Amino acid sequence: MGDITRLLAPRSIAVVGASTNPNKSGGIILQNIVDGGFAGRILPINPRAETILGHRCYASIADLPEPCDLAVIVLQREAVAEAVRDCVAAGIGGVLIITSGFADAGEPGRALERSLQEMLRGSPTRGLGPNTIGLVNRAAHLTATFVAMPQWCDGPIAICAQTGIFAGAVMQEHMGQPYQRLGVGSVLDVGNKLDVDELDFLEWALADEATGVVGLYVEGIPDPRRFVEAAGRVARSKPVVLLKPARTAASAAASALHTGSLAVDDRVLAGGLRQHGIVRADDLTDFFDYLHAFATLRPPRGRRVGLVTTSGALGVMAADELEANGLELACFAPETLAALGTVVPPWQPVSNPADVWIALDVVGPRPGIETPLEAALADPGVDMVLATVLVPPNADFPEVREVFAGLRRRHPEKPLALVLYGGCRHRWLTEIEGLDIPVFASSRAALRSLRALADYREWHDQA
Amino acid sequence: MGDITRLLAPRSIAVVGASTNPNKSGGIILQNIVDGGFAGRILPINPRAETILGHRCYASIADLPEPCDLAVIVLQREAVAEAVRDCVAAGIGGVLIITSGFADAGEPGRALERSLQEMLRGSPTRGLGPNTIGLVNRAAHLTATFVAMPQWCDGPIAICAQTGIFAGAVMQEHMGQPYQRLGVGSVLDVGNKLDVDELDFLEWALADEATGVVGLYVEGIPDPRRFVEAAGRVARSKPVVLLKPARTAASAAASALHTGSLAVDDRVLAGGLRQHGIVRADDLTDFFDYLHAFATLRPPRGRRVGLVTTSGALGVMAADELEANGLELACFAPETLAALGTVVPPWQPVSNPADVWIALDVVGPRPGIETPLEAALADPGVDMVLATVLVPPNADFPEVREVFAGLRRRHPEKPLALVLYGGCRHRWLTEIEGLDIPVFASSRAALRSLRALADYREWHDQA
Repeated sequence: MGDITRLLAPRSIAVVGASTNPNKSGGIILQNIVDGGFAGRILPINPRAETILGHRCYASIADLPEPCDLAVIVLQREAVAEAVRDCVAAGIGGVLIITSGFADAGEPGRALERSLQEMLRGSPTRGLGPNTIGLVNRAAHLTATFVAMPQWCDGPIAICAQTGIFAGAVMQEHMGQPYQRLGVGSVLDVGNKLDVDELDFLEWALADEATGVVGLYVEGIPDPRRFVEAAGRVARSKPVVLLKPARTAASAAASALHTGSLAVDDRVLAGGLRQHGIVRADDLTDFFDYLHAFATLRPPRGRRVGLVTTSGALGVMAADELEANGLELACFAPETLAALGTVVPPWQPVSNPADVWIALDVVGPRPGIETPLEAALADPGVDMVLATVLVPPNADFPEVREVFAGLRRRHPEKPLALVLYGGCRHRWLTEIEGLDIPVFASSRAALRSLRALADYREWHDQA
Repeated sequence: MGDITRLLAPRSIAVVGASTNPNKSGGIILQNIVDGGFAGRILPINPRAETILGHRCYASIADLPEPCDLAVIVLQREAVAEAVRDCVAAGIGGVLIITSGFADAGEPGRALERSLQEMLRGSPTRGLGPNTIGLVNRAAHLTATFVAMPQWCDGPIAICAQTGIFAGAVMQEHMGQPYQRLGVGSVLDVGNKLDVDELDFLEWALADEATGVVGLYVEGIPDPRRFVEAAGRVARSKPVVLLKPARTAASAAASALHTGSLAVDDRVLAGGLRQHGIVRADDLTDFFDYLHAFATLRPPRGRRVGLVTTSGALGVMAADELEANGLELACFAPETLAALGTVVPPWQPVSNPADVWIALDVVGPRPGIETPLEAALADPGVDMVLATVLVPPNADFPEVREVFAGLRRRHPEKPLALVLYGGCRHRWLTEIEGLDIPVFASSRAALRSLRALADYREWHDQA
């Protein structure tokens, strides 16, 4: 079978079961494809309509004037087999089977799914699903998912998931955020994996120019060795972040019910992941945090973190988390200490972590923040910088964007992560949006992500 | 020395260094006291003004017509000693010394602070600070802090901290949130602890009727045994959540610089905390999550969690976190399974965790959520319920508040925690505000908090 490029980046799409009713599945998904800006041909298949959303309808796949790249199938379960047979006969590149009620719904469904697999076997037609929310591939202007996305933030992240939440509700919420949105190029829900699975996706993502970092949610890994080798091939050039739940007996049982996945020995898997440089996320928060970090920051060349804070307590807490994550507190160079000395009074010299709250009184909020961050980022003994900054109104200043844009421009290779607390947090987040500066919910979250970057770089440099 | 009640719940307040300039420290804090709705007498001390904010000024403490309960001192460092001496001579209940530059600023400052301690020793006047952001005690309508709070959400939480962030920027941000705000009755920044410390606060909080749960941030614990015993006395009737950083060598060094605190052997401390039923938070996120959980939920009588989800993947991930936190997946009773069976089709029976996404299609969003949650909460084999709910528009329904208010009313003793994802998250959070239903950022966060509740109850029942 061929690769999944025609499926993910089609030039023409048939929607089998396209509906004139905008509240029915076959209406919603067509609307989303149109709203997503798809530039190729859209071919609704509906024997009882002339046109839908301005696109001419065809009675069946067999009636199409030309073979198309992708057929989205939104039919009742009983009608799916015939549609897939038609698609294979017509030489269509890929079928995206939205319909559920197959292997996800007991033995009769499993038998139906096996019959679909039989039809696809040996043909050039690839099958995605069934029981999937769909897929998004912004480089192809394709939003073939059920869940409306109010807005989309394009970027280097490619996600493949054995669940609908990433192409669905969870992504919808992320994309609805006013700031700190993930830059996502593509999302694929593999559903029941009747044909296309995460291995196909990895092969595609490795070659895809728009993809810079890969996120995988998988519950079942039928062949762990093949999986880690495939992910490892990608990891050599693009970071791969894996969320693989079902680490425990209870969750493995839950996973068997959710996706029919068999348990994998987690210790064996963990060893393979480490060996192949695959970054493992422990939960959904880590998963998105790590992807955000990889999408915005370059992995640091070492584990030394420069801590700059405007709260002594936040500095102390960050130092705890540093050690818990196997990172080191960087020692500042004499030049850095000299620069820090220019913003604080002699009776309160800056130490490490650099607590510079008093600098806001002494030299004012802007230089009180900018000078220490510039010095820390320029320090050759600092591999990355975490700044925990209090932003009550008296610590705010108008040129927040200018300052942080300058810091990033002058030190593009050095990760800079922020944690913000205070009444002006919203304003700061708005100001720095788009500057590739991740802002984390806590020092713990920030340092977990920075550790993930450092781990990846370490593996990459040795591999 | 007496207790700190006059200091925390004064009937009259002098502000020594009250300023007519609203941008100066002595102006801001007077404004905050007035804006906070303080109902007792406000006595600005300023020899060069007649009135400030409508309150008659006095030239000095000695000129006051009567001894007052609390004197807030906002003077230059050099003028503080004389003011404290005057307060002691006038028999004032407590002095809140905002000014910094004492033990927080090298040896000359330390000597000055020792001289203040000498003045207070043996007198009935208690001293809070110096180097403090101040205090808030809403039962006394008192907001004697530097940092303006745009709004305040009153509640049972009392916080004592050896840092300004809780009475300052971090609390400001929390209180500025549109929902899921902590209900806080009092916050005290003990600053350099020249006299009043966390032990005084614990004694006060134990007796204070408005306090239902205590949060402590301490860096230095000079006498760990005395500390755990004092906190343990409170824990017998009110949960105590402790954030004690500086667990590691690097953070202990940072802490020594921040608050001059000596390192405490963390293993010894941890043992004492467990013995005395004190809940330990590992970082700021945990600290606020735990306080929120204790302020809104009753500790469960066991460790069995009923998991209800509208996403199979979220259910699997929650099951992982369950085990990581030493909690158990509850087994549903036959009655519960029968109730769950009424909302799903026969070919997709509900299992455990109860994945009820399909119920939204079968019976509609409201019963699809309400029926399973009602059944799980009513199940005698379930000690608490975590619901991970996707809320894209098609899972939304108008009566969200009514449904959740009813669930809480019928099952007040059983903790119910939520995790929400999707485009309608904001709407749901707004709807359920004030119903004492905590919504956590992730299953991990939710289950960490539920574990804290269960641990506390277990200790409490055995103690």
